[in-house]
Amino acid sequence: MFFASDNTSAAAPEIMAAVAAANTGYAMPYGNDPIMEQVRARLRAVFEAPDAAVYLVATGTTANALSCAILTPPWGAIFCHRNAHIEEDECGAPEFYTGGSKLVLVDGEHAKMTPEALAQAISFTGRSGVHNVQRGMVSLTNTTEHGTVYTPAEVVALCDVAKAYGLPVHMDGARFANAIVATGASPAEMTWRAGVDVLSFGGTKNGCMGVEAVIIFDPAKAWEFELRRKRGGHLFSKHRFLSAQMLAYLEGGLWLRLAAAANAAAARLSAGILTVPGAALVHPTEANAVFASFARDGHRRAHAGGAAYYLWPFDQSLEGPGGAPLAARLVCSWSTTEADVEAFLNLIRG
Amino acid sequence: MFFASDNTSAAAPEIMAAVAAANTGYAMPYGNDPIMEQVRARLRAVFEAPDAAVYLVATGTTANALSCAILTPPWGAIFCHRNAHIEEDECGAPEFYTGGSKLVLVDGEHAKMTPEALAQAISFTGRSGVHNVQRGMVSLTNTTEHGTVYTPAEVVALCDVAKAYGLPVHMDGARFANAIVATGASPAEMTWRAGVDVLSFGGTKNGCMGVEAVIIFDPAKAWEFELRRKRGGHLFSKHRFLSAQMLAYLEGGLWLRLAAAANAAAARLSAGILTVPGAALVHPTEANAVFASFARDGHRRAHAGGAAYYLWPFDQSLEGPGGAPLAARLVCSWSTTEADVEAFLNLIRG
Amino acid sequence: MFFASDNTSAAAPEIMAAVAAANTGYAMPYGNDPIMEQVRARLRAVFEAPDAAVYLVATGTTANALSCAILTPPWGAIFCHRNAHIEEDECGAPEFYTGGSKLVLVDGEHAKMTPEALAQAISFTGRSGVHNVQRGMVSLTNTTEHGTVYTPAEVVALCDVAKAYGLPVHMDGARFANAIVATGASPAEMTWRAGVDVLSFGGTKNGCMGVEAVIIFDPAKAWEFELRRKRGGHLFSKHRFLSAQMLAYLEGGLWLRLAAAANAAAARLSAGILTVPGAALVHPTEANAVFASFARDGHRRAHAGGAAYYLWPFDQSLEGPGGAPLAARLVCSWSTTEADVEAFLNLIRG
Amino acid sequence: MFFASDNTSAAAPEIMAAVAAANTGYAMPYGNDPIMEQVRARLRAVFEAPDAAVYLVATGTTANALSCAILTPPWGAIFCHRNAHIEEDECGAPEFYTGGSKLVLVDGEHAKMTPEALAQAISFTGRSGVHNVQRGMVSLTNTTEHGTVYTPAEVVALCDVAKAYGLPVHMDGARFANAIVATGASPAEMTWRAGVDVLSFGGTKNGCMGVEAVIIFDPAKAWEFELRRKRGGHLFSKHRFLSAQMLAYLEGGLWLRLAAAANAAAARLSAGILTVPGAALVHPTEANAVFASFARDGHRRAHAGGAAYYLWPFDQSLEGPGGAPLAARLVCSWSTTEADVEAFLNLIRG
Repeated sequence: MFFASDNTSAAAPEIMAAVAAANTGYAMPYGNDPIMEQVRARLRAVFEAPDAAVYLVATGTTANALSCAILTPPWGAIFCHRNAHIEEDECGAPEFYTGGSKLVLVDGEHAKMTPEALAQAISFTGRSGVHNVQRGMVSLTNTTEHGTVYTPAEVVALCDVAKAYGLPVHMDGARFANAIVATGASPAEMTWRAGVDVLSFGGTKNGCMGVEAVIIFDPAKAWEFELRRKRGGHLFSKHRFLSAQMLAYLEGGLWLRLAAAANAAAARLSAGILTVPGAALVHPTEANAVFASFARDGHRRAHAGGAAYYLWPFDQSLEGPGGAPLAARLVCSWSTTEADVEAFLNLIRG
Repeated sequence: MFFASDNTSAAAPEIMAAVAAANTGYAMPYGNDPIMEQVRARLRAVFEAPDAAVYLVATGTTANALSCAILTPPWGAIFCHRNAHIEEDECGAPEFYTGGSKLVLVDGEHAKMTPEALAQAISFTGRSGVHNVQRGMVSLTNTTEHGTVYTPAEVVALCDVAKAYGLPVHMDGARFANAIVATGASPAEMTWRAGVDVLSFGGTKNGCMGVEAVIIFDPAKAWEFELRRKRGGHLFSKHRFLSAQMLAYLEGGLWLRLAAAANAAAARLSAGILTVPGAALVHPTEANAVFASFARDGHRRAHAGGAAYYLWPFDQSLEGPGGAPLAARLVCSWSTTEADVEAFLNLIRG
Repeated sequence: MFFASDNTSAAAPEIMAAVAAANTGYAMPYGNDPIMEQVRARLRAVFEAPDAAVYLVATGTTANALSCAILTPPWGAIFCHRNAHIEEDECGAPEFYTGGSKLVLVDGEHAKMTPEALAQAISFTGRSGVHNVQRGMVSLTNTTEHGTVYTPAEVVALCDVAKAYGLPVHMDGARFANAIVATGASPAEMTWRAGVDVLSFGGTKNGCMGVEAVIIFDPAKAWEFELRRKRGGHLFSKHRFLSAQMLAYLEGGLWLRLAAAANAAAARLSAGILTVPGAALVHPTEANAVFASFARDGHRRAHAGGAAYYLWPFDQSLEGPGGAPLAARLVCSWSTTEADVEAFLNLIRG
Repeated sequence: MFFASDNTSAAAPEIMAAVAAANTGYAMPYGNDPIMEQVRARLRAVFEAPDAAVYLVATGTTANALSCAILTPPWGAIFCHRNAHIEEDECGAPEFYTGGSKLVLVDGEHAKMTPEALAQAISFTGRSGVHNVQRGMVSLTNTTEHGTVYTPAEVVALCDVAKAYGLPVHMDGARFANAIVATGASPAEMTWRAGVDVLSFGGTKNGCMGVEAVIIFDPAKAWEFELRRKRGGHLFSKHRFLSAQMLAYLEGGLWLRLAAAANAAAARLSAGILTVPGAALVHPTEANAVFASFARDGHRRAHAGGAAYYLWPFDQSLEGPGGAPLAARLVCSWSTTEADVEAFLNLIRG
């Protein structure tokens, strides 16, 4: 019953096996290993993007911050949702890597920007010439921080706003696989065909040990990315261990199977919670995270029974009288079992 | 016959086994995994430093750059040898992480700073008050970039110079294990007892997949380190995979056994090369790297025979008439075998 | 009829005379001129702060950005009003000088933060430990960007919130003189007695050519300020010309007389506008800026008659049918005359 | 007898008069003043560069650091002489403004780089691909920090090296006027015709209060410069006071007359010193600075008699027995009189 985050899961066995298999003999370092050649070809094929530049890093924060750094100058604003990971959970990594850009926060229900809110934020920025930060780039997250999903059409609508102002678009796809499974969209239509310029393609939260790809659809910025990655300390010498994870992740559609399992677990969990009297969803369950409220008593039983998850927002308390509902975030992963879900539901049902 | 770098080797089987063993069930992310508790205790014991703050990152550049960032302000000079890794091989990562500090280069044979040269460099810096960059910190590398080793007494002498100016000292120990094996010193006498404030304790080049510890002997800067690590994108969510490597590396002295094997291979290689007519050492062989010159013909045979290594400096050429000696760098690792060495020697002997 | 900004005015004759008088013979550079000695003593006396560190720079953006840089680390949030100059009008200078901090925006009517809104913004920041930017500092502006004024009691209330979280406080006093005149407070009670740690003390907008003082009430950060000033290119070699302006500005209370003239002109202008049918204030007129709306016809006549000022916000248009009211910002300075005001009022009255 | 630096002089009367004359009525701020229009036209004419972008800042460090920032990315090396002002006297401003670039130091007698030394430094940098800082830009100083002058032919030779590597060239012309007077070259042949891309055109050291122009011969980087200037706090609101200085400086060749006076004074001083037994030049006197050694006794008499100048290098001492020669730097300015020179010579002659 571990719903604290998908990053608390182990790596999938296929990933670990590939890493172990890569551990033979010598390999050229720093991304020159032969497995990386295969990764590059495979990702280009998956995304139908034969010219894309493809790089691996070990953390999602790195993928996002380096992506921002190649897309906006220091004086450019990064337009993103108020709850974006780059705003809330990276200790200012985008500001650090860009050399001090400003994140301009856009509102929208369920952590999704609306085109109207995005357009307003952009139009209000940089109107006084040199005195303001300039319009820099847009970053959107799919799946979002609240477990919701942008459809390709919604991505198109946001990219259209960005393009109207000449701005490049980054997608934080730490849970990209979950979004693809949820929508049935192809990777290409969810990204470059919709107007996305750079994608953080997550592996870690979906069954890898620690690997993310950055896919740069227009490779003009590729060399700059390589320099920034090295300068940031993110170029692995024994790079084969990143490559091996990513190749196994793509092999035979493993990435989609893992995400499908996580999404299905969340659907089951969400449906089950809604059968509890007084329970309600805080955000729609569209991928692998459930945001729901249910009685404080249920939370107490869940915690007592060993369930791990966060009250969301943090400033709620299990202490206090009665059964007033509290909101929680429950994240499923590839390794969440039916038994986990049922055990949890039994606890909160009391 | 792979002598290009110790980072081209595989991970030692004990390391890989520990990583696989760690891959069970759920674990709290971001350094809160239980294995990290053991790593912390073990490193404190190894270094006889019960209060030291201990953190893991995945690359040596990261360990060095973050260490510099907590030891000097942006306007502080970093005094290091002209051939230091932080100067030559990190694409300016120290400048990036410190916010623009200046590396002031110190000379010295075989990549070792002398106390006199260090003192002069420090005394010449910051003499004009606010107009100059200030004296910031000292960074020394052990083993050095030329395969030589500072003894504890030599480290003391350099730290004494630094301390006379009130400067903190960082040691780049990407190959710290090799230095310990070479000198027989204890980890404590090589570091904090000699005056070192922060150590980059390398694992990657010595049989790990990708892990380095940063050991901060005075923990006052620990929280700042944590923030800088996160902000730099270097805090792993599935941190257990770093922890597992480091714990196995320390377990039963594995780190010293691996380094001893590498040093022994280099000694054998060095001695063998010296039996070749016309061959000579460019730098003394004191740890796991051999810098030697021998006839161009020998180089041609070695390359034709499949040996991998770099001419050093790079701007020499295998092309050209005759057998004029060329200099090379040959790095041994834990996995270098006697057979590798003998095969290589047979090639260059012709 | 020049109400575009107080920075479009000339320098007061006393200021210019002092600059000319300083232009004799040789003077030591970089702040070591004898006039600076007097400035230091005078500012310490005016602020009843005998230990304060006092520095001069040439622009308000510099004063603010350097102040922030010594008060917060790169990972610290700067809490300020949504309309603060540091947020809206400095092209990201605070982000640049701090090394990438994040401005967290606080709401409040008439560009004034409320203690409640400030407390909420602070409490919501940095709750997830290392994953978030940390709480860094508070910056408030007096007079505000909307021409309103914080009383000393209001400053105390905001500083109390900051201090409850251990945060230092900066005051952007580009129009500090106007705030002092408006409230009758002493400089000390408006600043360090209320809890302000560093003040940007403006001269440029109030009759100087280009000079701002930074007053650091706790001088522990003085040396860091000097280094950051030099490193930012803001240390003047012929510093006497900054010193001379500031000394003349303080001499005989000139700074207060100039501000009093500007505030009186704004009061007259504001009162006059309110006699125009349909006119209204957008923000209370408390210092030297008037934010008022009046009929589009009046604006057209004013522009045709040569009045210079901005519609505020910018995205209003003089074009279009009828007399619908438009909002404007009208800034008075020391040099605004009664005749200017009357001429303007006559124009908008039609 | 004030030879400490040319920046200890007053402003020339023409400059001060122009500043006073500019102080009438209202003027648009931030470089939109009408005088700046004239400055732009005048500088384009002087440099025969009708498309050049022209900006004003108040300090030489700012002019240099902003110039570097638009010419090299953070990971680019700046090749300059070991004694360049950007290396020795700006507290790391270039590193700050570029976001952490590395200054690679080139040797050469009398503070002049040779093409050979420059070519070697460039060729040795960035040879290991992503692991090194890249080749970024070249910066040369004319006149140099040791009072010597590059001829146009010498500038061509250095620029040719830079261009062979595709690198842009910056010239630090804090004393550009002195170099023009010394060589008789035209401004165009000393700069863009020789291959210089951006010039810091100094006014402050040569009779202005505090103004430097940055002349960007290829205006593609102009908008970036404007943003960096604003973001750095260097955009003056009452910009007319910078404009007025620069316009008067150019008017009727004042800038050349002032420099000619300074150079002539230095020539007289240098010749006079050489008549003193035991005296010698440390560097040739080619512009307005004299680097000479003469007997310690002479120094003692000069100091006792009120002469102001620096022993150069700093670590020499007037204390000690006998008359062993000590080296000094003596800088003349537009305001150095024959009487000053004669009085000084009389003192050292004893």
